[in-house]
Amino acid sequence: MERDLDRLLSPRAVAVIGASPKAGSVGGTILQNLRNCGYQGELLPVNPNYADVQGLRCYRAIEELPDGIDLAVLAIRRSLVLGAVETCSAKGIRNLVIITAGFKESGDVGARLEEGLGRLIAEHDLQVVGPNCMGIIHSSPEMKLNASFSRWFPPGGEIAFISQSGSLGETLLECFGDAGLGVGRFINLGNRAGLSENDFLSHFLKDEQCGAIFLYLESFAAPTAFRRLLSEAGRRKPVIVLKAGRTEAGAAAVASHTGSLASPDAVVDAFLRQCGAIRVTTIEETLTALRALERGVLPSGRRVAILTNAGGGGIVAADACERTGIRVPPLGAGTRQRLEAFLPPEASLGNPVDMIATAGSADYERALEVVLAETDAAIVIFRPPLVYHEPVEAVADGILRIVSENPDKPLLVCTLSEGEAVQSLIRRLWEKRIPTYAMPETAVDALSVLMRARELKEEMGFEEGALPRDVRHAQRTVERVLAEGRDGLTFEEGADVLSAYGAAVCPFHYAASLDDARTFVESVGYPIVAKVDAPGLFHRFEQKAVITGIRNEDALGEAMDRLREIIAHLRLEKGRVLLQKTLSGRELIFGMKRDPSFGPVIMFGIGGTLVEALKDVSFGVAPISSSYAERMIRSIRAFPLLEAFRGQEAVDLAPLSRILLALGQMGLEILQIEEVDLNPVIADGRDTAVVDVLIKLRAPAV
Amino acid sequence: MERDLDRLLSPRAVAVIGASPKAGSVGGTILQNLRNCGYQGELLPVNPNYADVQGLRCYRAIEELPDGIDLAVLAIRRSLVLGAVETCSAKGIRNLVIITAGFKESGDVGARLEEGLGRLIAEHDLQVVGPNCMGIIHSSPEMKLNASFSRWFPPGGEIAFISQSGSLGETLLECFGDAGLGVGRFINLGNRAGLSENDFLSHFLKDEQCGAIFLYLESFAAPTAFRRLLSEAGRRKPVIVLKAGRTEAGAAAVASHTGSLASPDAVVDAFLRQCGAIRVTTIEETLTALRALERGVLPSGRRVAILTNAGGGGIVAADACERTGIRVPPLGAGTRQRLEAFLPPEASLGNPVDMIATAGSADYERALEVVLAETDAAIVIFRPPLVYHEPVEAVADGILRIVSENPDKPLLVCTLSEGEAVQSLIRRLWEKRIPTYAMPETAVDALSVLMRARELKEEMGFEEGALPRDVRHAQRTVERVLAEGRDGLTFEEGADVLSAYGAAVCPFHYAASLDDARTFVESVGYPIVAKVDAPGLFHRFEQKAVITGIRNEDALGEAMDRLREIIAHLRLEKGRVLLQKTLSGRELIFGMKRDPSFGPVIMFGIGGTLVEALKDVSFGVAPISSSYAERMIRSIRAFPLLEAFRGQEAVDLAPLSRILLALGQMGLEILQIEEVDLNPVIADGRDTAVVDVLIKLRAPAV
Repeated sequence: MERDLDRLLSPRAVAVIGASPKAGSVGGTILQNLRNCGYQGELLPVNPNYADVQGLRCYRAIEELPDGIDLAVLAIRRSLVLGAVETCSAKGIRNLVIITAGFKESGDVGARLEEGLGRLIAEHDLQVVGPNCMGIIHSSPEMKLNASFSRWFPPGGEIAFISQSGSLGETLLECFGDAGLGVGRFINLGNRAGLSENDFLSHFLKDEQCGAIFLYLESFAAPTAFRRLLSEAGRRKPVIVLKAGRTEAGAAAVASHTGSLASPDAVVDAFLRQCGAIRVTTIEETLTALRALERGVLPSGRRVAILTNAGGGGIVAADACERTGIRVPPLGAGTRQRLEAFLPPEASLGNPVDMIATAGSADYERALEVVLAETDAAIVIFRPPLVYHEPVEAVADGILRIVSENPDKPLLVCTLSEGEAVQSLIRRLWEKRIPTYAMPETAVDALSVLMRARELKEEMGFEEGALPRDVRHAQRTVERVLAEGRDGLTFEEGADVLSAYGAAVCPFHYAASLDDARTFVESVGYPIVAKVDAPGLFHRFEQKAVITGIRNEDALGEAMDRLREIIAHLRLEKGRVLLQKTLSGRELIFGMKRDPSFGPVIMFGIGGTLVEALKDVSFGVAPISSSYAERMIRSIRAFPLLEAFRGQEAVDLAPLSRILLALGQMGLEILQIEEVDLNPVIADGRDTAVVDVLIKLRAPAV
Repeated sequence: MERDLDRLLSPRAVAVIGASPKAGSVGGTILQNLRNCGYQGELLPVNPNYADVQGLRCYRAIEELPDGIDLAVLAIRRSLVLGAVETCSAKGIRNLVIITAGFKESGDVGARLEEGLGRLIAEHDLQVVGPNCMGIIHSSPEMKLNASFSRWFPPGGEIAFISQSGSLGETLLECFGDAGLGVGRFINLGNRAGLSENDFLSHFLKDEQCGAIFLYLESFAAPTAFRRLLSEAGRRKPVIVLKAGRTEAGAAAVASHTGSLASPDAVVDAFLRQCGAIRVTTIEETLTALRALERGVLPSGRRVAILTNAGGGGIVAADACERTGIRVPPLGAGTRQRLEAFLPPEASLGNPVDMIATAGSADYERALEVVLAETDAAIVIFRPPLVYHEPVEAVADGILRIVSENPDKPLLVCTLSEGEAVQSLIRRLWEKRIPTYAMPETAVDALSVLMRARELKEEMGFEEGALPRDVRHAQRTVERVLAEGRDGLTFEEGADVLSAYGAAVCPFHYAASLDDARTFVESVGYPIVAKVDAPGLFHRFEQKAVITGIRNEDALGEAMDRLREIIAHLRLEKGRVLLQKTLSGRELIFGMKRDPSFGPVIMFGIGGTLVEALKDVSFGVAPISSSYAERMIRSIRAFPLLEAFRGQEAVDLAPLSRILLALGQMGLEILQIEEVDLNPVIADGRDTAVVDVLIKLRAPAV
């Protein structure tokens, strides 16, 4: 289905099915909104009960409508919707906004109706927003369209806003308006029976009037498509996502060991980061982020200078920077000298630079120039002091001159007030897209968003095919196991699959007898680990089927006897005793688990008791880039344990990254693999080896 | 010096020294503020250059003033201040607000002036606010006093606001005004040459018109007095502290191992928690907290019900609860049934309860009654829907009826808007002190503040003297070491001091010879640890002077030889070889370090590599209560490692608490101890023993 949303968003004629004279009703409000918003096209109300509605000729039935209608808005009883959709389609109306509720969101009858609607949409290739939605809004110099019952019609602007929720969408529109943030497009998706966020995302990414896209989502319609869209185009304009809803917790909940550590929200976090989307968590942060991103300038580092005429504000800002991981470095001697030359002796030349209450526009301008020379961004705090002889706009003008000379350095202004006294300064700065905030902490949050946006830009991109691998070999192993009716691989088979993806497995040997064992031990040396391996034995450790620290032949013999008893006791027909060399180094854990929504999810953590006690793990959604893999490794809290530490060499991260890449590729390429657990993997300064591997397949079709 | 701040805050006559006709100047603005604020007492400007100022008779000199003046506000050049203070004192004016800047905050001359001022204050027993301050404000039915150059004069209310910063103080006053939060007292402390936050805190804690005290502080004038004041009276009214300023980082930075882990801000956190003060970190959170605390009702548990007529808002609120650790439990079957009886079938009866857009005031009232029966608090989200036939106040009235029936359960309302449509509802609720917020996340933050306030109330109080100890014995050991000119204790001496405070030390023995060692080993058994002990040897481990895992006599002999070599090599005249039994269990670390501002600070963490890599430690300021000690133990992230875990028994927490109490008492009672490091302490399900102890003393006076 080829989408063309131009006519949906810029219709030349709109039919309102269910239009009513009463402004208080939904059908009445929508018609009224369309009349009042400045829409220049033709408006055609449809209602069998009226000859005219709100001063417009009213059509008795859809069939009576003239041709050439680009969009129909349906606000009728749910029992009439499917019929109306068919009639619209017959009239050649391809674009529909279905306001009517009572579908999937409300019980079985509604769900069946929505299935029927879905079939109609597919059959007639319709472009449908909703059902159960507030409608759509377009506000630009060329088009004023409020095809919704929202009471707020934005004045237009660069933001395209796609919302899964109606009421919260309207709330946000109102907030954007209050904050002076210009919204040019608003889509309330409703139940997404037809069009989803991906269709609009694709459209707005190409729409040159859209400078930023904001999505409020409670779930993803199709995450893979979402990611593809963003990775194709996401670098061009910022995409900000407020993702709410713990309902996916259920969907992502998984039973395995790896899975039990998964916090599904952390997977959403990982996914959005990999998409290059900026995730915000609160409505407040949304506003802060959109304001900050308007200018489109991202900092190239984490050093900020704080200039202030009010000491307390500077301290509060510096504290907030420290909490957020933004550096407020002391200024160099040269910079301090240059500041000293014109600031009064009472000024404090550390960072924050407290220019005290007497600072005028010229001080702000000169000081800003000086401090920007050695930092990546600046926060300027200006609160008009009691005794102040200039118009406040002069401060804005001084700031703007320095901004034009430093086009690549973000600058955020804090006024410590929203009062009348600073409004003219704020307006002057907004004209040039310099963000202003009342509170120092908000300015710092904004800078933090810009820094995240910069990181995301640097992380984007993944190198497909960079990993040498023998997919067919691994595939054949998996198919052989499935053909035997099994859903779990033995250690040997798992090692075989891993090796096909380039991951090194610790030397091992199945010992048929003590003699046989001795030969293996001679080649690798004591101490030795012995364990039971058998198809379907997923919890060796819990079954006490692992014996470590075997240091001599007596112990080896004892261990073999004990494990053979366990095999007999558990009736593991194909059970064997597996011997491994004992490796020393840091214990790590890797995993892959297929998520019903996101596909293969990769996990990394530090092994041993720590991982279970601290749940200190990181996630990625396949495919992952090697830079993202490294980020996964570095982002766990216990990462310092992998660095040179108390005389231990730093762990070589490259092989760890390769295992993560391998797990991602394996998940994408061998669809029968449901889950992989590598626990532990032992790594030191030079070597990395998988010590245990469990691979579960999807149960073979019955 | 006995304080009596009544006359300072409610003066019958105020002299303004340096009053000027010009409203734009500081002296002019203060007089104007006093004239315009509704002050009913006598105003007496003093300025040698005028006969009258702003229509009031002006005095040429302080000497000319009549008697009976309660307060003088000084806004004159700094060179004149000390003389003016003396003259005021001679005239019997005890209360002074010194606005003039240029003292301690600005170089050597100013610092010397402030020292002189301090001497005058002490000599004449004056009560001085400032210098370098904005002034003081009192706004109540009985008194209107704006003895400041603040442009904002609050309408009065229950909040007393003590601010170390002037400009930020004014900003906050403005924010409080915008948010409808009533401030009745405002004090800008300035340089605190005379009165500090503690003097005002003491006054406001007793002042019945003050319902809550808010402090903005960058440093504590005297933390111990601050804590004593709060622990005497803090339970009666909430004390909220916005503590900014990383400058104390320097003061608290310490060189020791324990100290190097200290994040001084974490110490401030601990201190305020122990004081029972509610710490806020941002201006936004300050407003949220003050609003929430107005009603004075704290939740008795962490379960909240969310009622909404807008699905998205409910989801956003539930998400925020989850992030904040507030429980949004599913409702019981009985509750669901009761809701089902009157809500439409489209309503969602989980938690959040989404009553959909048709919900009216009666639905809100009934649903609230039902859900409050099984939760500790409720968040009610009401956004007037498009089609709504009641006045919005009806919803407020319904809510208020249920509130009056549930006086002990906090209730927070979210309107998803600040628009005109909800203003009457907000006003109705505020009258009854029900907090309202535009954003769901803010309502959740507010609830989180209430939950913290509840926890703090429960934690308050410490049991002095509960710990059996022999202070004199420990004291004598320490004095003996100092008498020998040493600043470090040997292991034996440290163990002796610890034992006097009831902490068990692992069995040890100084082995003079291998024979001697053998006797000890026979009594405790292998494996054995051997280490070098010598006065002043603070870093055994780094010197490789610790040998662990000695399992037989050969190894023992080898170890003794090696350690004796080290003793010889390091020329440790009093070096000895110390043997210890090897203990197994969880490795913990305890410490005490004397902080120049807070006094003895106690630290707890998990030992081994973890503590260093994760900096996962908790702090307390002595004295600590046993409940706070337990809180310290439970609040480290790795606490699950101390619980029953992978077949290991849970660690007994009682002896750990006792060690923390002991360290606190030791710090308070033996002032020569600068620092204690217990690293490691080994604990398992039954036993706890200190394995290594380092005690450093203050270097003996030269």
